Amino acid sequence: MGEFELIQRYFTRPTRHAVLGVGDDCAVLQCAPGMQMAISCDMLVSGRHFFADTDPHCLGHKALAVNLSDLAACGARPLAFTLALALPDANPAWLAPFADGLWALADAHGCELIGGDTTQGPLNICITVFGEVPVGPAQRPGLAATRAILRSAAQSGDDIYVSGTLGDARLALEALRGRVPCDDATLVSVRQRLEQPTPRVALGLALRGVASACADISDGLLGDLGHILERSNVGARLDTSIATEKLASATLSAAAQTVLTPQQLLAYVLAGGDDYELVFTAAPALRSAVAQAGSLSGTPVTRIGQIEQAPGLRLVDATGKPVANRFASFDHFAA
Amino acid sequence: MGEFELIQRYFTRPTRHAVLGVGDDCAVLQCAPGMQMAISCDMLVSGRHFFADTDPHCLGHKALAVNLSDLAACGARPLAFTLALALPDANPAWLAPFADGLWALADAHGCELIGGDTTQGPLNICITVFGEVPVGPAQRPGLAATRAILRSAAQSGDDIYVSGTLGDARLALEALRGRVPCDDATLVSVRQRLEQPTPRVALGLALRGVASACADISDGLLGDLGHILERSNVGARLDTSIATEKLASATLSAAAQTVLTPQQLLAYVLAGGDDYELVFTAAPALRSAVAQAGSLSGTPVTRIGQIEQAPGLRLVDATGKPVANRFASFDHFAA
Repeated sequence: MGEFELIQRYFTRPTRHAVLGVGDDCAVLQCAPGMQMAISCDMLVSGRHFFADTDPHCLGHKALAVNLSDLAACGARPLAFTLALALPDANPAWLAPFADGLWALADAHGCELIGGDTTQGPLNICITVFGEVPVGPAQRPGLAATRAILRSAAQSGDDIYVSGTLGDARLALEALRGRVPCDDATLVSVRQRLEQPTPRVALGLALRGVASACADISDGLLGDLGHILERSNVGARLDTSIATEKLASATLSAAAQTVLTPQQLLAYVLAGGDDYELVFTAAPALRSAVAQAGSLSGTPVTRIGQIEQAPGLRLVDATGKPVANRFASFDHFAA
Repeated sequence: MGEFELIQRYFTRPTRHAVLGVGDDCAVLQCAPGMQMAISCDMLVSGRHFFADTDPHCLGHKALAVNLSDLAACGARPLAFTLALALPDANPAWLAPFADGLWALADAHGCELIGGDTTQGPLNICITVFGEVPVGPAQRPGLAATRAILRSAAQSGDDIYVSGTLGDARLALEALRGRVPCDDATLVSVRQRLEQPTPRVALGLALRGVASACADISDGLLGDLGHILERSNVGARLDTSIATEKLASATLSAAAQTVLTPQQLLAYVLAGGDDYELVFTAAPALRSAVAQAGSLSGTPVTRIGQIEQAPGLRLVDATGKPVANRFASFDHFAA
């Protein structure tokens, strides 16, 4: 199977919305009137972002999911994506399920494959995704002229929320590495969260005009909330007891919670990584609007803290006592 | 140096045209009224597309150049790009010149870096580039509704042209591999063509409304012309003597031409690869318009054949005698 047959067989379908899809030098996309293009790009490397023997169907799903998660964080509606793929060989036993997993998620979001590149090399999957957001004036002076939800627009006094639950993917990772014991039923559940995360696209869309700022959680809650704080030039106070009790209890099994030390539990929830949930802020006056966005999109949302004027992130326990923040977010080039 | 410092130090600049650039979950781009977005994506893998010890300044240039070449083939004006980079380590001695080479070409084309991803892994550079082309009705029934120059719109009777010269990059590659002797002066010249190709953006823009079809030549003239023929459902007759004499003589030194067999010379010009010139078609009535596009953009263009109704590619010599086509275009997964 040659390069062009591979593209034709697995990665070419008629497009419905794009002006021009796979097969020319460029694809052509056109936004609807009054809309702008939101663009994000994520690269997944074998042995770094996933185990080399990861089920290719899951990998096809995840490669697109992590990109859709970025669109979700901006409140963008998915339109299309490009796929660049470096493969050790053209193996149908890997390509067919990979393509199936990719198309299944793409179809679920009406997101078309419009182009890309295929080459031989160490397994590397690079997707660039395109969504649309409404054109709009800047919300405040100094902000970009868009109705995309930005990281830079959180304001002192805003509530801080997180979607879904956190820590599952990290528990799955550590269990698969044999570092943490985990019963089979729990592993099946948390492994699904690691390998087939659900991008919170519907929530992101429902949060347009409601959330003041938003980011997706890929490197851990504290790290990604930190990006919002830094870019918005504000600080935050986070109740770690709310975070761990509400966010961990729904998915971490009682057995796992018994096995994990309280410190491990806190670390997985606050800085686990690979969660692909949304952390966002909204004015306290909009609490019912946030709740409605959650219920409309079928996504649990939990209020976990508050934006404050003073820079920095202050962790407290249920009694208001400071909790030391020793949770490093993921860094590909950390020493 | 961590991941975020790396991005901040080498790959973050204020944007001038993009609504939102590096640093949020998504970038945001907006086309001018009446324009559509042309999108292309190329992945370069170390050891496959370039030698691992390639000068990083050249590599920064080339990684963007091969993408701009795709925009050129569509007649699109460059706007912006995303960069996904897998690096073995965060080495300033490599990153600084790589970024310099990248920015120099980006600035020359007013093309902004608006986002991307950085990760650890085997060296892999994946750029997705965005340009704009005018909205327009389909040129003929069955074609896409765009004024982008397509591969699929060549018509029987059209002339076939190629820009610049061909074969230099292949000569450089073979000389660097020690397979072909090459004097130092020639090597310096052809190596520049291999490592720092000039994307024919100005020519592509000048060919809007003139060329009926166009493709960039990355896998060899015959292979890329073949894409035009296949997608346009036509054939072609190509005078290989015009191709080799006119296209080779300007850059292949006399010494190199003496060393190369006529068959090698023909192979390098017709199927060398990595040329990043444009092959395009235009109605014979537009010959002076093509010449004007070439001179306006400062790009040599040479007429090398004609589109015919009958499918297939027919090579002939100066006397009209058939020349066997044994020139395989590059295929990453060819057996």
